[in-house]
Order: sequence, then structure tokens, then C-alpha cells
Amino acid sequence: MAIKFYGAAGSTSCLRVQACLAEKDLDYEFISVNMSNKEHKSPDFLSRNPFGQVPAFEDGDLKLFESRAITQYLAHSYADKGNDLIIKDPKKMAIVAVWIEVESQKFEPASSKLVWELGYKPMFGMTTDDAVVEENEKKLEQVLDVYESQLSQCKYLAGDNFTLADLHHLPNIKYLMGTKAKRLFDARPHVSAWAADILSRPAWVKATSS
Amino acid sequence: MAIKFYGAAGSTSCLRVQACLAEKDLDYEFISVNMSNKEHKSPDFLSRNPFGQVPAFEDGDLKLFESRAITQYLAHSYADKGNDLIIKDPKKMAIVAVWIEVESQKFEPASSKLVWELGYKPMFGMTTDDAVVEENEKKLEQVLDVYESQLSQCKYLAGDNFTLADLHHLPNIKYLMGTKAKRLFDARPHVSAWAADILSRPAWVKATSS
Repeated sequence: MAIKFYGAAGSTSCLRVQACLAEKDLDYEFISVNMSNKEHKSPDFLSRNPFGQVPAFEDGDLKLFESRAITQYLAHSYADKGNDLIIKDPKKMAIVAVWIEVESQKFEPASSKLVWELGYKPMFGMTTDDAVVEENEKKLEQVLDVYESQLSQCKYLAGDNFTLADLHHLPNIKYLMGTKAKRLFDARPHVSAWAADILSRPAWVKATSS
Repeated sequence: MAIKFYGAAGSTSCLRVQACLAEKDLDYEFISVNMSNKEHKSPDFLSRNPFGQVPAFEDGDLKLFESRAITQYLAHSYADKGNDLIIKDPKKMAIVAVWIEVESQKFEPASSKLVWELGYKPMFGMTTDDAVVEENEKKLEQVLDVYESQLSQCKYLAGDNFTLADLHHLPNIKYLMGTKAKRLFDARPHVSAWAADILSRPAWVKATSS
């Protein structure tokens, strides 16, 4: 099998790539990285991802890391397979790129800190830092206010079609929906409907059930 | 003039776009946003960038924001103008995308905090938080260790050609070179040579002297 995906259960970055693989209906070999054994810090794995983090990815002789770079490669190189996640028209694609960057620069920093404090820490028996939660809930609310306005004008962040810009949000939203931060989504009707819509996509259901 | 660029002097995000405009040898109208008058929070500006931040960008009827989305648009849509910043071969471009993501997810978070603490705060008469500096210098060192290894194998981050992946680093490196964080670059010979090389590009000199 040409595509090899090195990942670990529960990793939001891995789920981002797995969602994309499912949307593109691509077969792949999943290689589990044993993080409790520090396999991600081994010389072999560091040759795949020099930061020693999952995921790592291989397609034939091409080796990639960074979840959002992998999804972009899949969306472009397998444009004819599965569901479209990009738009061919360069101006419309430029708008998709804007919202991909918004996720990366605005949504990810606040939401990933909340996933850590409210999702992972309790799971690992660690104590949640309420000050960090408060600070990042405020930041996330500012982002979701912009999303509420945008999603009142179009069904998905970058227009009428589901794209990579929406997909990249899925892992963190999934975790936050199991925490008290869910109320920040619930309080915004368009954001709430969008989150429900993207979380119910068959590819996402497949990616999270495997 | 088709391209309008709404920016403010000293903004690292604006400099990122201005570097790209200079590399692509594109003429544009610069519209100064008066941030001390809160012009970036006005309804007119919020219609250009809903986060109320510079830069905002217009090319004919296309309106964009987020610096890295604008540079991608310019690099792709004006591929025939100025210097190449992307690579046509999809596999080589996938490698460029990896290092674009490394800048965005690894270099930017640590370096932008250091730019704030060591660059802007002293300029504004504010007190630098030494604990934040220490924490982010450690994070930046880990990133620069990976860069040192990568740049011992190729001249630029994504291979033998200067690309968007390198360009995106320029504004934060420029500021850090005027602070004590310069020593983190100086201690790594390949990183140091790379930084000197990209900082001396004629397009960057032009972008920072206008």
C-alpha cells in the first residue's frame, strides 16, 4: 500500500489527517506509534518527523509531517478521489486559504489550550488551570463571534462548500463538545449548526470510529 | 491600481506581505491604517478583516486577510512575475507546505512572543516578563535545532530554492536580530548563514526601507 500513516490514538493532529483520508476515500496502512515507549523520540521516527511528534506520513517516496501540510497534499494530489476539499477557481481557493489560516492562527491556539486543560488533563489525573481556561475561553469567544457572523452568510466558513478550512477544525471541536466549553458553541446558533453538520459527516464518523 | 494593501508600519504580519509583494515585483497602493485612532476597529475596516487586525488586502474584487493566505495568493496568482516562491512539482511543493506549516505552528508561536517581550515592550516602555522570555527561548531553541539540521542538508528550508517557507520567517527574525535572542541564531552556523542570506535579499531590503 502506497500511503503509510504513522499516528497515535487520541492525537488531534492525527485525527485531522484521518478525517482527510476518509473524505478522500483513500486506503492506507496505519502504523501505530507507541508514545508511552517514547517511540516518537527514536532515531527512526525522528527521520520521519524531526520534531518527534505524530503524525508522520509516507506516500511512495514522499515523506511528510505537519497535519495541515499532509491534508493539503492529499486534497490537491487526490483531487479526483472522494469529496472535493479544495476549489479549483483561484479566487475562491484564496478565500479557502484565508479561513485555513484563521483556523491555524486564531482557532487552534485558543482551542488547543482548552482541549489540553479541559479534555486531556482530567483524563490524565492532572489539575485544570482555571486561569488558563478563562483566558482562552475569552479568546475562543472572539473567534466564534467572527464565525457566527461569517456562517450567517454562508453554510461553511469559506462559502457554500465544505472544504479543508472546515475539516481542520474537527478534532478540537470534537474534544471541546465533551467539555464545558460546549456552551460557547451552543450560544451561537450558526456556529452550533455548523459544528453539528461537520461532526455528522460520514467521513468524520468513519475516522473517529476506526 | 488593482492591488490595495491596508497596513501599519512596524507590523510583522504586514511586513510578511510586503516582502512577498517586493519578491513578486508587484506595484500596489499602500493604505495606512491609523491604529492609534482605532481605525482597525471601524466598521469599514472590520468589513475587510473581521478580526480588526492589519493587514487587509484587495486585488480587484477579491478581498483577503491573514498574511500567509495573502502571500500564498500572490505566489500562485502572480507565478509569472518576479521571483518564484512556490514550486510547480506537486511533491516538491508538498515539502514547501511542510515547512510553511513548521513556521506557522512552531516558529511563530515562540518567536512572536519573544518579539513582543524583547522588541515591542521596551519600545512601548513596558516591562519585559523574564519568565515568558525564558520559556519561549527554550521553545525557539528546539525549533532552531531542527532548522540547523535541515539547513545542513539544503540551502533553504524546503530545498535548494528560496520559497514562501523561508519568506514567512523574515519579519520575526528581523526583530529578534535586534534583541538578545540573536545569540540563539548566532550559536547555530547554518541557521545564522540562512538568516543572513534571507535578510540580505533585495526584495526584503526594499520592503523594509519603504
